Amino acid sequence: MSASTNSLLLGNQTHLPSLKSQSLLRLTKPLSIRCAASSTTTERVINFAAGPAALPENVLLKAQSDLYNWRGSGMSVMEMSHRGKEFLSIIQKAESDLRLLLHIPPDYSVLFLQGGATTQFAALPLNLCNPEDPVDYVVTGSWGDKAFKEAQKYCNPKVVWSGKAEKYTKVPSFDGFEQNPHAKYLHLCANETIHGVEFKDYPVPKNPNGVLIADMSSNFCSKPVDVSKFGVIYAGAQKNVGPSGVTIVIIRKDLIGNAQDVTPVMLDYKIHDENSSLYNTPPCFGIYMCGLVFDDLLAQGGLKEVEKKNQRKAKILYDAIDESRGFFRCPVEKSVRSLMNVPFTLEKAELEGEFIKEAAKEKMVQLKGHRSVGGMRASIYNAMPLAGVEKLVAFMKEFQARHT
Amino acid sequence: MSASTNSLLLGNQTHLPSLKSQSLLRLTKPLSIRCAASSTTTERVINFAAGPAALPENVLLKAQSDLYNWRGSGMSVMEMSHRGKEFLSIIQKAESDLRLLLHIPPDYSVLFLQGGATTQFAALPLNLCNPEDPVDYVVTGSWGDKAFKEAQKYCNPKVVWSGKAEKYTKVPSFDGFEQNPHAKYLHLCANETIHGVEFKDYPVPKNPNGVLIADMSSNFCSKPVDVSKFGVIYAGAQKNVGPSGVTIVIIRKDLIGNAQDVTPVMLDYKIHDENSSLYNTPPCFGIYMCGLVFDDLLAQGGLKEVEKKNQRKAKILYDAIDESRGFFRCPVEKSVRSLMNVPFTLEKAELEGEFIKEAAKEKMVQLKGHRSVGGMRASIYNAMPLAGVEKLVAFMKEFQARHT
Repeated sequence: MSASTNSLLLGNQTHLPSLKSQSLLRLTKPLSIRCAASSTTTERVINFAAGPAALPENVLLKAQSDLYNWRGSGMSVMEMSHRGKEFLSIIQKAESDLRLLLHIPPDYSVLFLQGGATTQFAALPLNLCNPEDPVDYVVTGSWGDKAFKEAQKYCNPKVVWSGKAEKYTKVPSFDGFEQNPHAKYLHLCANETIHGVEFKDYPVPKNPNGVLIADMSSNFCSKPVDVSKFGVIYAGAQKNVGPSGVTIVIIRKDLIGNAQDVTPVMLDYKIHDENSSLYNTPPCFGIYMCGLVFDDLLAQGGLKEVEKKNQRKAKILYDAIDESRGFFRCPVEKSVRSLMNVPFTLEKAELEGEFIKEAAKEKMVQLKGHRSVGGMRASIYNAMPLAGVEKLVAFMKEFQARHT
Repeated sequence: MSASTNSLLLGNQTHLPSLKSQSLLRLTKPLSIRCAASSTTTERVINFAAGPAALPENVLLKAQSDLYNWRGSGMSVMEMSHRGKEFLSIIQKAESDLRLLLHIPPDYSVLFLQGGATTQFAALPLNLCNPEDPVDYVVTGSWGDKAFKEAQKYCNPKVVWSGKAEKYTKVPSFDGFEQNPHAKYLHLCANETIHGVEFKDYPVPKNPNGVLIADMSSNFCSKPVDVSKFGVIYAGAQKNVGPSGVTIVIIRKDLIGNAQDVTPVMLDYKIHDENSSLYNTPPCFGIYMCGLVFDDLLAQGGLKEVEKKNQRKAKILYDAIDESRGFFRCPVEKSVRSLMNVPFTLEKAELEGEFIKEAAKEKMVQLKGHRSVGGMRASIYNAMPLAGVEKLVAFMKEFQARHT
């Protein structure tokens, strides 16, 4: 029965010594099974998508191996009762690994939710504010702006700094904007996915009882973060730590429990905190995938090591841009360029279509810039291998040589 | 490279003629790869979980095969941009297959959302009502009750019938409750997962401008439904059509566009409808899985055929209970017993622990009743094979023989 064969081969495959797998390949050839050795590696594309984005190959292979029958449980993770011991072990390990990675203090809760960062744009003011409460937003890109607009429904938010006039290429100096001393929180987007602007350090709320809140969707777990500086950190998983459909909220426990009356039960942090993210059925498979990624990040040595890799990848790409004598251009101020999302344009804008098309022929995909800004964008999250960035840089140089 | 081997074997495996797979097995044995032929079939449990629940084996194998590299795209579905042509083809096919399955009229929108039915408990009154609008709820179990309670935040709901006093074992006759002639909608839960009570037909709203709304989470796509009788049908996917993390809303288009001001953007049907469920990043992998299930249901001959299978499975189980001379008991009134969730108790309640434990030894798992009602519950959704129910029935008879 091919179904059975399928699963068990997978179950063992990842643990096979390479000699054995090579032998297996040779043996299978006479049966006209297409040889895999070269083909999956070459068939995999180099995926510069902004999210959903590339996942670590070893994580995908592990998920594939376990998909039909997770660790001999007799079922897929997708089939497990969310209250059964198997899934509880998965979500608990995911949480404890994330706590290890980010050194999350014990007075913070970790919630695995649904609905993306966009749902949190509403949940934050609904949980932390009364309708008349003032809050401050630093707007360094489209996501910060969306967060601000949604908050207008539930409290009294003010944009204390906006980079819009400069096309979102900067982050303000921390004394360059005036905070409301009564603001319940100061909100920022730690990394603007579309514009490639990233905070390298964080402002402190002027209100001693206020808290700092950061949307870290696109740089979550890309580097160490001092969680204790924040009241809330939240992130959609689909950039650095998993598939879409999981949103992670890290919140200081004393901020939980004051939701406005109009808060939908699914947006009330108290409900999720009291039920360890199991008030209703959570996105189980997505949480499982995040857990595999956390495990992989720990195995890489933790976030300091991950940050070094990300810095190296970003450096060779920004260097290629800056050393192109203007052929490639990155509009973002150097000190706040994102390690994750690298937007760039061509001096000769008419060549951008060709650049993207030719790159795709070389298996480098999703390089088109966001529709709101145009140009190109290379998203180089944790799972993008150095070799992927090196290949892009080599292609850029070759493309430039052909067009100058 | 074992990673590559792995994927490609999978890529071909499901299409291998059985002779070839048998040969492959023989060939792999000398390499000490554990033989799979018997083991995955016997290792798979018979999963009676109420949701997340069993998925069709062929769907899981297909998902496993494609997980690392979807149809030669070079990436996993989990890695695809939700705006790329690959994922668009997936979500569009999922929608058109669902439209075929349920014969959804063109004046209805299909939305793929997040947050489970519980999020819809708030979204429905927020989108369809003003705060003072009256709405009616028929409460035949815990889920209908939760829906009613959430609606209290956003409109003026009334319970027009409740089965609570009779422990949720009945559905009212349609002239057995009084509707508010001004109610904006009449809400019911088509199948109560916990109590095993299922509507076999549906009441008509008394208000000619009102609409009928049904939570079909636990019997969605288990039988044909005349969608045109409803204003809104909604369902969490994790019982019959996919993994957790996807919520499907089928809504008559003229009901869209009147959300209250306090509606979070992610709960506004208009936003999702205008953006074809792609306003923010949707739960891509979950939607892909639902699509595979829809495809499988169509291949089975559509929902009439699926209903016949479900009727047969339910009949042999209810017959076994009813013919046990009181050893097993189902509290639900016969005419409204669910085809999906079969709750039952033992006359000798002290034997229930043993029953569940021994069943688990026979690989029949998740038979424990919901913590709020006790006893046992066998959830026998679409993906539960007839053989699974037959095995349970045989076990029940054997257990009874040993204890009488």
